[in-house]
Amino acid sequence: MSKGARTLLVEGLDAPGVLASVAGVFAHHDTNITGIQTLPAMAGRALLTIEVDADADVSPLVSDLSALPQIQRVSLEPSLLTIYGKRVIIIGGGAQVGQVAVGAISEADRHNIRGERISVDTIPLVGEEALADAVRAVARLPRAEILVLAGAIMGGAITAAVRDIQTQGIKVIALNMVGSVRDVADLVVTDPLQAGVMAVMAVARTARFDLTRQKGRVY
Amino acid sequence: MSKGARTLLVEGLDAPGVLASVAGVFAHHDTNITGIQTLPAMAGRALLTIEVDADADVSPLVSDLSALPQIQRVSLEPSLLTIYGKRVIIIGGGAQVGQVAVGAISEADRHNIRGERISVDTIPLVGEEALADAVRAVARLPRAEILVLAGAIMGGAITAAVRDIQTQGIKVIALNMVGSVRDVADLVVTDPLQAGVMAVMAVARTARFDLTRQKGRVY
Repeated sequence: MSKGARTLLVEGLDAPGVLASVAGVFAHHDTNITGIQTLPAMAGRALLTIEVDADADVSPLVSDLSALPQIQRVSLEPSLLTIYGKRVIIIGGGAQVGQVAVGAISEADRHNIRGERISVDTIPLVGEEALADAVRAVARLPRAEILVLAGAIMGGAITAAVRDIQTQGIKVIALNMVGSVRDVADLVVTDPLQAGVMAVMAVARTARFDLTRQKGRVY
Repeated sequence: MSKGARTLLVEGLDAPGVLASVAGVFAHHDTNITGIQTLPAMAGRALLTIEVDADADVSPLVSDLSALPQIQRVSLEPSLLTIYGKRVIIIGGGAQVGQVAVGAISEADRHNIRGERISVDTIPLVGEEALADAVRAVARLPRAEILVLAGAIMGGAITAAVRDIQTQGIKVIALNMVGSVRDVADLVVTDPLQAGVMAVMAVARTARFDLTRQKGRVY
């Protein structure tokens, strides 16, 4: 999703083949779909959001989509990136996740007031496999930019998952804890509030904080 | 996204027409796509996650998708619902959002330990229009079930947006604040920690808390 993306909200039948017809309209106009997302069907109706680049000519798309027999309604909406912005993800134990969240939310507030859009999204979890799955899937979360691991002990499969998502462009901050995630994290921070604040600073264009210059440091 | 959904992770070219080809495979097998999501393209490659119902026969889909010239890789992954579960969304001022989040994360921890999966996702924002847009777009967030409005004054366009998303099945808890959102919320809670706890209880199948029996009450 690029900054200037435009989003079409398409409401239609929840049935096989509908998406193929919709996607066919974009292919016919040689317009690349930069983001697409479906929402759970309600009463046999499916809701699709489709993002295209800001320079795409949307009016012929809207009229061709509206002409499809399976489509009831097409409208233009602001993109989720415009509304909710970049995502800071916090995963770990409830006690630590809560405190990292307080720091991150407070810092995001300060940047969002100055025109940024940063969300702080969390899940408290227990168990190496559940945590590793959740870490690995951060790369599949739209708009996720940085992960804070907020636990007391994390290693093994979780460390492997951290390496995976780092190759996909996700930055990782870890609390100062037992286990090997400390060794692979881009930054280790002891205080949970500070970890949350630094995570937001690392993704805010309204802050001067370059995580690559802190690589491997412990605070 | 249904509970037993299966997710295909499809990696291919980021170009016009690719989605139409992919969707065509599902249409050919008469398989309904229950959820689809793209991730930002990296180095000309696009990543698509496609969910189908648990009873769908995925092996012919995987082989037909792999045979498409624009597709490099197809794999089966757990769904985001399996990993991150239902979402509690908290929107408002930084101070209040942070405290509601602490309550919600702590309560989600207790339920997730017992086998639930509940995420707590937040954004601190200022301004009636920005807040109204963010509230309205909750209906477009996958897996979102309940919204907590955590501010000191909210009304006007925000109240209209609350009514909109309530008709789309999203429950709304408001802090005890100035303005008309109090009048339309499903529940009004004075203490922010308690509001977060109650929001999680309202969506957890591991809790005994029926929001419909509390409709319009103030705590």
